[in-house]
Amino acid sequence: MALIVQKYGGTSVGTVARIKRVAKRLAMLKDRGDDLVVVVSAMGHTTDKLLDLAHKLNPLPAERDYDMLLSTGEQVSIALLSMALHAMGYKSIALTGAQAGIQTDSTHAKATITNINTRSLRKYLKEGNIVIVAGFQGVDKENQITTLGRGGSDTTAVALAAALKADWCAILTDVDGVYTCDPRMVPEAQKLDEISYDEMLELASLGAKVLHPRSVQVAKEYGVTLHVRSSFNMKPGTLVKEVKDLENIRIVSGVACDKDAAKVTLMAVPDKPGVAATIFSALGDAAINVDMIIQNINRGQTNDITFTVDESDLDKTVDAVKKLKKTLNFKGVVTDNNTAKVSIVGAGMFSHPGTAARMFRCLGDAGVNIQMISTSEIKVSCLIERKLAAKAVKALHKEFELEQS
Amino acid sequence: MALIVQKYGGTSVGTVARIKRVAKRLAMLKDRGDDLVVVVSAMGHTTDKLLDLAHKLNPLPAERDYDMLLSTGEQVSIALLSMALHAMGYKSIALTGAQAGIQTDSTHAKATITNINTRSLRKYLKEGNIVIVAGFQGVDKENQITTLGRGGSDTTAVALAAALKADWCAILTDVDGVYTCDPRMVPEAQKLDEISYDEMLELASLGAKVLHPRSVQVAKEYGVTLHVRSSFNMKPGTLVKEVKDLENIRIVSGVACDKDAAKVTLMAVPDKPGVAATIFSALGDAAINVDMIIQNINRGQTNDITFTVDESDLDKTVDAVKKLKKTLNFKGVVTDNNTAKVSIVGAGMFSHPGTAARMFRCLGDAGVNIQMISTSEIKVSCLIERKLAAKAVKALHKEFELEQS
Repeated sequence: MALIVQKYGGTSVGTVARIKRVAKRLAMLKDRGDDLVVVVSAMGHTTDKLLDLAHKLNPLPAERDYDMLLSTGEQVSIALLSMALHAMGYKSIALTGAQAGIQTDSTHAKATITNINTRSLRKYLKEGNIVIVAGFQGVDKENQITTLGRGGSDTTAVALAAALKADWCAILTDVDGVYTCDPRMVPEAQKLDEISYDEMLELASLGAKVLHPRSVQVAKEYGVTLHVRSSFNMKPGTLVKEVKDLENIRIVSGVACDKDAAKVTLMAVPDKPGVAATIFSALGDAAINVDMIIQNINRGQTNDITFTVDESDLDKTVDAVKKLKKTLNFKGVVTDNNTAKVSIVGAGMFSHPGTAARMFRCLGDAGVNIQMISTSEIKVSCLIERKLAAKAVKALHKEFELEQS
Repeated sequence: MALIVQKYGGTSVGTVARIKRVAKRLAMLKDRGDDLVVVVSAMGHTTDKLLDLAHKLNPLPAERDYDMLLSTGEQVSIALLSMALHAMGYKSIALTGAQAGIQTDSTHAKATITNINTRSLRKYLKEGNIVIVAGFQGVDKENQITTLGRGGSDTTAVALAAALKADWCAILTDVDGVYTCDPRMVPEAQKLDEISYDEMLELASLGAKVLHPRSVQVAKEYGVTLHVRSSFNMKPGTLVKEVKDLENIRIVSGVACDKDAAKVTLMAVPDKPGVAATIFSALGDAAINVDMIIQNINRGQTNDITFTVDESDLDKTVDAVKKLKKTLNFKGVVTDNNTAKVSIVGAGMFSHPGTAARMFRCLGDAGVNIQMISTSEIKVSCLIERKLAAKAVKALHKEFELEQS
């Protein structure tokens, strides 16, 4: 008998039939004697529909309103899943983020979980309930509803698993596990049986949409074993955990692609100490995640500063940097939302010098121009033209022999 | 400068364009210097769509789940209306029932407001916000989300007006006010300029869908003046208040029709003391509102007991009475959901004997058979066959000369 946290994404609860299937799967586990906490996302395209309504009313809605609106999506899912379980004769209780004791800071739309008060959760589990928790949401100290931003439901699930000391946390999704590459881009992509937290973290950060990097970070920090698997079949998926067997580590585990990267260049920024700090503090204050940053020396006493953000943050980013124009006296802002980031990830990379060079050569041979480069110990990322992304990913997947299982 | 509570129904916020129109109307009042608390219902058919999903998963969902699900509808509306006001540059804050301090008992799906903690509301008003509150919902002592049942948003609005000692409470709807009869049934129906609480209470109870009887009851109890008017134009509507001018009171103010009445008969119930109490206590415990009740003497030692409930409660009612079959030893249950209740209402009725007889004769002349009769000081109701409802209402409207303004 185990305590398991399971998370079902929007596709897995996208229709009445799929909610019924999830309920059956939970019933099976419950019959086996497991204690279950289930985190669900909003049904299919609910969030998109709500955002569409919102943007028709206000192109830049206040984030408190945004959270108030979006948090309803998960609330619908938990109520419906609980109804399905009741119809099958199982005890269950549906809880909003607030009711589940998920406390966050007050950064609306991108809140961070600060604490989970597990008292209610434990009580409901003890009473024999399958406990269903709305993903993606929490409540701040002022009782304001917050949402956790992208991939928030994964983070909810992992944080609950950590707080409840669950045996593991299963992330049920619409793919069979973590692949060497997105199978829609490279049909030869192979499923990985296991992967280390660090590799998963890089892959997740780099646009492999299976898991959100924040959730992997929390899992790593609290040692929560993740099991990424399909909600549509019973095949074993990919285990994400501390991988100790260093000798057997692959040089490159996967190729990732983020097609939502947007590039912003501040032209001719005066070359003075503190300028970069001013720019990126302002973006931080606006809760914008900056990814790659490069600074080119320009003629004279100025630099061009280029960085990338998620395309959805582009308008907000331009607003934020334009406010700095008077203070910093730069020449102008140029944006490009026609870029993509391709990356190779592998824990064995640091012991194999020349891996980055091999990547650059491969891209050059494929006729792909590299606009920006960023590296860490276990990954190399290149920003390229968006329409060349698929070509680049295929070439890299082949170069590093990932189609061989 | 007044403190006004306004309530907008589902039709009034049914589309993006209509939400914008509501925002403009609120902005106009705010510019005039009024303090505003706005209660909104779920958009158009949202509730029906959610119920449809629910029933596909569970024909008889637990009421806690039902409340969890339905309360999202109003939450979407408040967030969108706040976005619209922000886009126009107005300060506003969207509050769920819980955040607005609306405390209820724990009767899920049909909760009663027990208290309103106005601390947050007053704070937000003082800060200059247009305060937007989700109608229809509250929270019980255990922090469980509850809904108030039919017409709950009206009740939310009136209860807020009472708690805040608002100058008046405007109910904005899709009709111009309270009419002598449903204008869709009788084109000659006249709008009333004002009506007493008691008359409105009877009309509301009898199926004039403009206002929910609970909200009128609360308004009467706390002396809240109601202004029922259209959200689609600026015409003055109908004032609902204490009418003192007894001499000028109309005999019959309006004709109402409730097409959702369903009739339940318990056949051959043994004639023993306490039997009726047992039946109607059981229905009360199941939170079913019973309307008309008659008891016919049958052959021998048994009675037939007939009563009406709202058609939506029919399944639940049959479930509840079937459980009593062993205890009470009655013969069987017969139901008829093919009935309608037509009523005449007027504060002057009690001083004009013979009004009821005039009604019965009018129905007889129109070929409408009367199945059940129920009376109060200011109304007479008859249960009739549903397909004859329109004919009956037209005849009564004419009989009592209501087409003359």
